[in-house]
Amino acid sequence: MDFLSWMTSIQQRTEAALETALPPADIAPARLHQAMRYSVLGGGKRVRPLLCHAAGSIFGAPGDILDAPATAVELIHAYSLVHDDMPCMDDDDMRRGKSSCHVAYDEATALLVGDALQTLAFQRLAARLAGVSPARQLEMLALLANASGSRGMAGGQAIDLASVGLRLDIGALEFMHIHKTGALIRAAVLLGAHCGEAPPDALERLGHYANRIGLLFQVVDDILDSESSSETLGKTAGKDAAQNKPTYVNILGLRESKAMAGKLRQDAHDALSCFGVAAARLHELADFIVDRTF
Amino acid sequence: MDFLSWMTSIQQRTEAALETALPPADIAPARLHQAMRYSVLGGGKRVRPLLCHAAGSIFGAPGDILDAPATAVELIHAYSLVHDDMPCMDDDDMRRGKSSCHVAYDEATALLVGDALQTLAFQRLAARLAGVSPARQLEMLALLANASGSRGMAGGQAIDLASVGLRLDIGALEFMHIHKTGALIRAAVLLGAHCGEAPPDALERLGHYANRIGLLFQVVDDILDSESSSETLGKTAGKDAAQNKPTYVNILGLRESKAMAGKLRQDAHDALSCFGVAAARLHELADFIVDRTF
Repeated sequence: MDFLSWMTSIQQRTEAALETALPPADIAPARLHQAMRYSVLGGGKRVRPLLCHAAGSIFGAPGDILDAPATAVELIHAYSLVHDDMPCMDDDDMRRGKSSCHVAYDEATALLVGDALQTLAFQRLAARLAGVSPARQLEMLALLANASGSRGMAGGQAIDLASVGLRLDIGALEFMHIHKTGALIRAAVLLGAHCGEAPPDALERLGHYANRIGLLFQVVDDILDSESSSETLGKTAGKDAAQNKPTYVNILGLRESKAMAGKLRQDAHDALSCFGVAAARLHELADFIVDRTF
Repeated sequence: MDFLSWMTSIQQRTEAALETALPPADIAPARLHQAMRYSVLGGGKRVRPLLCHAAGSIFGAPGDILDAPATAVELIHAYSLVHDDMPCMDDDDMRRGKSSCHVAYDEATALLVGDALQTLAFQRLAARLAGVSPARQLEMLALLANASGSRGMAGGQAIDLASVGLRLDIGALEFMHIHKTGALIRAAVLLGAHCGEAPPDALERLGHYANRIGLLFQVVDDILDSESSSETLGKTAGKDAAQNKPTYVNILGLRESKAMAGKLRQDAHDALSCFGVAAARLHELADFIVDRTF
């Protein structure tokens, strides 16, 4: 199967898995459930589920087991977007080409949507996974929680808010992104590998790959944000610069940022070398992150 | 040990367990960690930890194992208070006798505090518990998630918001409270029992006790809210009536509400009869919930 067909197939099965995990829209409280579904379904590149499935496939983990952590990670990501878009945070009216949750519904609902999506992520990963020992499944839950909390994603968002208007150096910017986006991307990769009972040294290599991919993702995001129109991006373009947020592009310049992306891609590829062709999808995903135009 | 000494000892050990579970205030992102600690430590009756320890003690579960679910449930409760107080929700400036988190810090920080406290709850309960099988621990995580999400506590908050200004009947009010406060109180009791490997029929009896206690807690809250001053209550008194929120007192009247509280206490006591003196603390907690003046 070529990469694009594989990617489409994972995106489709992820959509179906999310659809099943989310409460039906006609069950009380119906408006909350509708808003949860609105915020999660029918959009998004599903990069984290793709990474999760690609990492699990190295160790022969079955797709229907990988759907659980893939869904959980995507629900955490979705909750963070709903909360990040709120007026007291980034105050963004558009997300994935449609109105943000707090615009389509209201602020109170958006707050509860984010809260309930986070809970649902842990609920999904706490349901027994066939072929994964309960002890390892507990490790996976701990991994997801560590990646999402105040010393992971939520902490990264706090650092991001605190750095608006500041002149960060490249080290401080990297520290923020390792938390804000890197931690959950790393969790996506490692949770997939755990489903295939990956040994510790393989987890270490994949952790290194994931760290590079996490930064790569952000550098490319900054490049796209500085180059694209809102229409192509599906969210408000140039917003970071307008909000005076530090980005790779305004610290390093566009040319240097692109060089950095090339180096990160190479490092990511190198970290996979020990897995040979089994890691082909992860290899291709690094390329995809660099070459995407949306 | 008399009830008040026991209660004080559990409150103290809960404070210590929360103190340990929360990230240190000097670790980055320091402001977020300070705000998390501000919102959780040094206040609160710790009713849910008390219920958790009391239920676990029936089956001989050790206190240091019970600290884990007690902490997790209290962190979920604390997160819900931080988010409920925000301007887009109940817009309350006072909590536990001091400024609400979004007043003491800012709205964006309060949003992240709530998010990160929820994550920390699951993180705490995912760490291995000695003497509890991993499979049962996964059940406990699923139980906590079910109680907290859109079909539990967060869903109850959504129903509460939707009912402002409406004339609810007693059935609809009960439906809301079973979700908003009842689900987490039930989780506190059952998680404690799980730590002692309680058998299914005991869990069922305790579930019944917890359902009565959950409603009892809310009826008494409504009575206190209509009778007390803000100073005694440690939060803005008479707020529900001012916001035109349905309460037991304005649906049933004060006299009927007090009669209902008496009936619920009796039902709660009855549900414990099969456990004999082993359930003395749960029995006393039902009395405490009725007789508290704060």
